[in-house]
Amino acid sequence: METQTDAEYECGFLEDAVEDGRVAYEASVREQYAEDASPHAGRLPDAVVWPASTEEVAAVLSAANDREIPVTPWSGGSGLEGNAIPASGGIVLTTADLDQISVSPDDLHATVGAGVVYDDLNEHLAQHGLRFAPGISSGDIATLGGMVATNASGFNAVRYGETRNHVRRLEVVTADGRIVECGRDVVKTSAGYSLKDLIIGSEGTLGVVTEVTVGLVGVPEHRRAALVTFPSREDASRAVSDAIGSALVPGAIEFMDRMSIRMLNAYHDDLEFEEQPTLLIELHANNDGIEEDLAFAKLICEDHGMESWTAAAEENIDDIWQARRDKYWATTSYREEWEVALVGDVVVPISNYPDIVQEVSDAGEDLDLTVSCVGHAGDGNLHYTPLVDPDDEEMVARAHELNERVVSKALELGGSATGEHGVGIGKRKFMAEEHGVALDLMRSIKDTLDPKGILNPGKVIPEPSPE
Amino acid sequence: METQTDAEYECGFLEDAVEDGRVAYEASVREQYAEDASPHAGRLPDAVVWPASTEEVAAVLSAANDREIPVTPWSGGSGLEGNAIPASGGIVLTTADLDQISVSPDDLHATVGAGVVYDDLNEHLAQHGLRFAPGISSGDIATLGGMVATNASGFNAVRYGETRNHVRRLEVVTADGRIVECGRDVVKTSAGYSLKDLIIGSEGTLGVVTEVTVGLVGVPEHRRAALVTFPSREDASRAVSDAIGSALVPGAIEFMDRMSIRMLNAYHDDLEFEEQPTLLIELHANNDGIEEDLAFAKLICEDHGMESWTAAAEENIDDIWQARRDKYWATTSYREEWEVALVGDVVVPISNYPDIVQEVSDAGEDLDLTVSCVGHAGDGNLHYTPLVDPDDEEMVARAHELNERVVSKALELGGSATGEHGVGIGKRKFMAEEHGVALDLMRSIKDTLDPKGILNPGKVIPEPSPE
Repeated sequence: METQTDAEYECGFLEDAVEDGRVAYEASVREQYAEDASPHAGRLPDAVVWPASTEEVAAVLSAANDREIPVTPWSGGSGLEGNAIPASGGIVLTTADLDQISVSPDDLHATVGAGVVYDDLNEHLAQHGLRFAPGISSGDIATLGGMVATNASGFNAVRYGETRNHVRRLEVVTADGRIVECGRDVVKTSAGYSLKDLIIGSEGTLGVVTEVTVGLVGVPEHRRAALVTFPSREDASRAVSDAIGSALVPGAIEFMDRMSIRMLNAYHDDLEFEEQPTLLIELHANNDGIEEDLAFAKLICEDHGMESWTAAAEENIDDIWQARRDKYWATTSYREEWEVALVGDVVVPISNYPDIVQEVSDAGEDLDLTVSCVGHAGDGNLHYTPLVDPDDEEMVARAHELNERVVSKALELGGSATGEHGVGIGKRKFMAEEHGVALDLMRSIKDTLDPKGILNPGKVIPEPSPE
Repeated sequence: METQTDAEYECGFLEDAVEDGRVAYEASVREQYAEDASPHAGRLPDAVVWPASTEEVAAVLSAANDREIPVTPWSGGSGLEGNAIPASGGIVLTTADLDQISVSPDDLHATVGAGVVYDDLNEHLAQHGLRFAPGISSGDIATLGGMVATNASGFNAVRYGETRNHVRRLEVVTADGRIVECGRDVVKTSAGYSLKDLIIGSEGTLGVVTEVTVGLVGVPEHRRAALVTFPSREDASRAVSDAIGSALVPGAIEFMDRMSIRMLNAYHDDLEFEEQPTLLIELHANNDGIEEDLAFAKLICEDHGMESWTAAAEENIDDIWQARRDKYWATTSYREEWEVALVGDVVVPISNYPDIVQEVSDAGEDLDLTVSCVGHAGDGNLHYTPLVDPDDEEMVARAHELNERVVSKALELGGSATGEHGVGIGKRKFMAEEHGVALDLMRSIKDTLDPKGILNPGKVIPEPSPE
């Protein structure tokens, strides 16, 4: 990790931008913002600032822009591609204190600060019988601002969509400190360019999101879930593409390979899932039709050689999901001293899901790596996690080779290099292949909205001659 | 209507850009592209070109850009805000011949040319049991390119979303003739800036859409519909906001005021709807739970003083919607010699729906105008149609005054100046009020992507000092 000196001197202007006590130069504080949840190398910022209001965010950005000092927005720090690492030093701007929540149940929307944590929002909404629904794994850490930044999604996107599909309005501060309302608190509009949608997924490189209005859905009255095992990953993944192709709209449909199940069983003392390729299927409804849908889902699974169907009791469904949410920790603790080299994240057209699952399996064998796979399969989204001995550089290199091979295959299949984790540092090198000419347009938009390049430099858009 | 001369001389380069027979300079042809479906004043283009391929579109744009000649893309011409009128003359580029359809049923998507007509696509998709679902009124004319241009939607958006929510990938040609793929054929991605979403709703001012991949949904197995009458518009609109707020997700929920019903009855010999404020509620499901939902919808209507509930036989549902789709024609023929001054289109947060309905009613009375209202009420979207004697300038002016008053009220209520018709010429003057600082950003993006300003000039973005 690089270190900085003279930070206080250079960034002293921050005291004028925010209230007392909202800037820190101490190494002990700066170190907390040097790394995110990804395996990417950290970098110490020169200062950390946590504004109390949108106006303070604007004052920080305006002053930093005048001085051409990099500003990296920080939400929950749960990013898996180095999205929030201050790659060029400068200022980390955390939105943690922008944490107000205002719910309009009649409009099915909530207006929340960028620093509100996903699970906290849903806990707050429960009293109204409502939910913000993308269903992300890291919901205990990730904030609304970060979810907008990466267009995050997760378990429930197959029914309810990505973060993008829920955002009605954003309040954003530009690089030069202008406060901009992007969109209106309505469910639809065709009033010009959707800046809101341009900002979503831009990872703080075009502006800093300070407030979000998100649409909500009702908590489903009925939920049914089942753990379904198959003889092979291929059978399981074909069952998924068949279910989606038949226009079934599950609440979630999650794929877990044999190795993932083994890791979950090892991590949880009280868990004993069958060690087989598994789908966790959940259905949502507000009426009794759910039983008919469940029977239909089972029929599809039977068509693909289903070996077992274990219906979950309604009161156990959340526990099963919590077990799945612990997958990352189950993986890291599976072999003492070994670490997760990276968390792969690709998405393909659903009919190609069996192919991308096979590619991970083949690459793991070819490269002699312990790789486990899970995925929000209904969206064609697959995660894969090679475990490595961090002291074995050659093994770490093989893990990255696996990632490159799988991403290339996903792109070849018409897919995308990242389904929900964003580009950050880790996926920049694939952007030229994924976007082609579109990347030139993205670059020109970046130059237009952030001409001095102060916003989260080193992220999303690769340098003009690709790395 | 203004006329042009020397068109052939100025635009002769077009023969080099497209195949023989794909350019026209004859006044008889140009006149067909001088006006769209809106009441806005037409303008003759200098030439009309209909490219046979994306490459021809690129050749036309590249050559026009070199010569700084305006190009106005033309889709179905069904725009209601002058969206496709060649306001600065120059070239009209029609995408009508980009009409290929390729369906991938397993991926639940279709890749279609910009010139494909909405109803034709859905007819084609029916063999697969699938639908492209926004449900627009002018589906017999509107094309996919035009729907992307205005982010169109309609009856079924309340359940399935606007065009934006369905588009997975766009092929777009930039002002200077570059062919750009925006997005991938996947249901979700977080790979950088969503150019796709920036283009959607930009009405051909940032690029010309040539091909679209749209997501599809299954044709629902079960449909139920009912015509429900209420003692007042307020009761009807409160029932809508209550239904949506209770997280019911109807397939459609359409509001029609007393005057609209009167017009429909007069237009259709075989129709005899009760002349009362009416909701047309439709439910969709793939299981028997639909009856439970229907009973719940009826309960909500009863809570708001429902006077009658007439269930439609399943085989009649499409006929009822067809009657509703004829509303525009029913309005224009209601009083011989009178015309529709404009088709209003605003959207508000759903809890404010009763207020905006009331505003139209009050303004109609205050201004002594015959105004009928319909609306995709579940989205908070309201259309209003003042009828005027076109020779009575003062009356026409009153109709525009009504529109300004209603749009201002919608904005005051946190709504948007246009729900689904786009900005075109007619709504430009409201953009400064709706967007504030965001408009400056839109302008800078326009300047970046179309530096010579050749793409559909005079639309969407108002001149720097507002009209």
